[in-house]
Amino acid sequence: MSQTERIKGVLSPVVTPFNEDLSPDADRFVAQCQWLISQNCGLAVFGTNSEANSLSVNERIALMDSLLSADVDPKRMMPGTGCCALTDTVRLTEHAVKAGCAGVLMLPPFYYKGVSEDGLFRSFAEVIERVGDSRLRIYLYHIPPVAVVGITTKLVERLLKAYPTAIAGMKDSSGDWNNTKLFLDAFSKQGFDVFVGSESFLLANMREGGAGCISATANVNPGPIDKLYREWKNAGADQQQKDLDAVRNATGQYVMIPALKAVVAHYAKDPAWTKVRPPLVELSKEQASKVISDLEKLDFAMPGLGKQAATA
Amino acid sequence: MSQTERIKGVLSPVVTPFNEDLSPDADRFVAQCQWLISQNCGLAVFGTNSEANSLSVNERIALMDSLLSADVDPKRMMPGTGCCALTDTVRLTEHAVKAGCAGVLMLPPFYYKGVSEDGLFRSFAEVIERVGDSRLRIYLYHIPPVAVVGITTKLVERLLKAYPTAIAGMKDSSGDWNNTKLFLDAFSKQGFDVFVGSESFLLANMREGGAGCISATANVNPGPIDKLYREWKNAGADQQQKDLDAVRNATGQYVMIPALKAVVAHYAKDPAWTKVRPPLVELSKEQASKVISDLEKLDFAMPGLGKQAATA
Repeated sequence: MSQTERIKGVLSPVVTPFNEDLSPDADRFVAQCQWLISQNCGLAVFGTNSEANSLSVNERIALMDSLLSADVDPKRMMPGTGCCALTDTVRLTEHAVKAGCAGVLMLPPFYYKGVSEDGLFRSFAEVIERVGDSRLRIYLYHIPPVAVVGITTKLVERLLKAYPTAIAGMKDSSGDWNNTKLFLDAFSKQGFDVFVGSESFLLANMREGGAGCISATANVNPGPIDKLYREWKNAGADQQQKDLDAVRNATGQYVMIPALKAVVAHYAKDPAWTKVRPPLVELSKEQASKVISDLEKLDFAMPGLGKQAATA
Repeated sequence: MSQTERIKGVLSPVVTPFNEDLSPDADRFVAQCQWLISQNCGLAVFGTNSEANSLSVNERIALMDSLLSADVDPKRMMPGTGCCALTDTVRLTEHAVKAGCAGVLMLPPFYYKGVSEDGLFRSFAEVIERVGDSRLRIYLYHIPPVAVVGITTKLVERLLKAYPTAIAGMKDSSGDWNNTKLFLDAFSKQGFDVFVGSESFLLANMREGGAGCISATANVNPGPIDKLYREWKNAGADQQQKDLDAVRNATGQYVMIPALKAVVAHYAKDPAWTKVRPPLVELSKEQASKVISDLEKLDFAMPGLGKQAATA
């Protein structure tokens, strides 16, 4: 696979809608993914912001199958497949690869803390060997504030040496630009694609040879984030970055996942979107109003949102 | 259910043996559980030391069914059933309750960090409501060094008020005696059974009204730990505690899980026992020899171990 065929740009860790009984709502999920695609946004379904680890493996597979049945292009998908259990990770990854997904975003097994580099290498190696498919493209998922277990440059070095085709890149959600820079400097010239976990670092990432971003806020602000991705070399890029940051700050002032859902609910005029699975809780009415009113002070819109649902 | 019928005493988070291909080895697992029962040790199968979160839900259910098929008494079992996904936790818990298990040891959902008390309350409440079985007895599992997400006294207070029958106790693996004491003082008189997560605190726990311990080392040293549980009021108890601590220190000088498996492998004369699933790695030969030679300096034995396997 040549570099140019790789998935790049802006991807959204798509928020997962739930029915009243907390089961995943496949119809709203498909409509949301179609809207994101219409905004030129890739689908990092089953990420942290998707509450993916609050879903069983079967629930995730059923949601992915709904997307495929609705003819959503798997080449625009990078599903999260990393679980605590080796066999779960293998099963989800296999399903994604067979479906033709562009790649998979893989958390390290995150239950045990303080595990050795050797143990993490063996974890990823086992998955790659068991899936045994040359189409597999893994993006290593580094999110120490949540998973605690992280990805180190030494680990990437070993994995790239052993599996130069399967190891395609990473998502860095450390929130630490120095860490992103470390990986960019070490590996980006070898075709290892570094995505930042927040659009706050998108411009910096592009200037240093990064591949794009996979960001929570791409759930609600995909168009402008994609615009900066396409126009990062232009004179207005710094101002565009500032505008993106303002939207992110407004959205992320409380807990991010329920806030994203409150924003989708508001702009889609669809209150069912607010539902989250425990251990998360919905924003209070006051919190949700504050987020919306702060967004309304900015040049914020979700053009075309809710049309799919209305016409479905 | 009266207090006297509750499971108490010493339980082992049973280590899970693996075949060459890393699939769970049901035969060795059943034999080990039978040996533990012969030592008067309860079965906290699918705990942290069981690598339970490295197993899929189906793999855990299959292992539990192997125990039941082998007529291992479910009244001696407290399987771990807490997963990140609500639906997984419900499925495992339901299976355990229907099998007649004495209780379940339940981790909070542990992927998201910094979740609210409200979100955790809602997590446990959803499980209890969905399982909807008056036989359910939940032991809340507090293990902040691993799960990071923990159990607070306020959470227990709310849960006990809402579900006085289902909330039966806890396992405190904080390693902090002051924390254990806090829960004992607050709840033990209401029949909330506090198990310590290490036999190092067994004597202290019994003296303060605790229910026993659920400890890694009970995999290899169940008899003497049970002896202290039964004799804690006797004059020799402090010396017994010291002897237990010496065995624990020898076993736990490297990483606990592979060390336990190395000890079982040595005393059962069955090298297959050393296998762990990634992200864990086996002890090196030198580390394993050091653990064994340190144990041999103590009055350590695993009487009767390996006989089940030999006669099976």
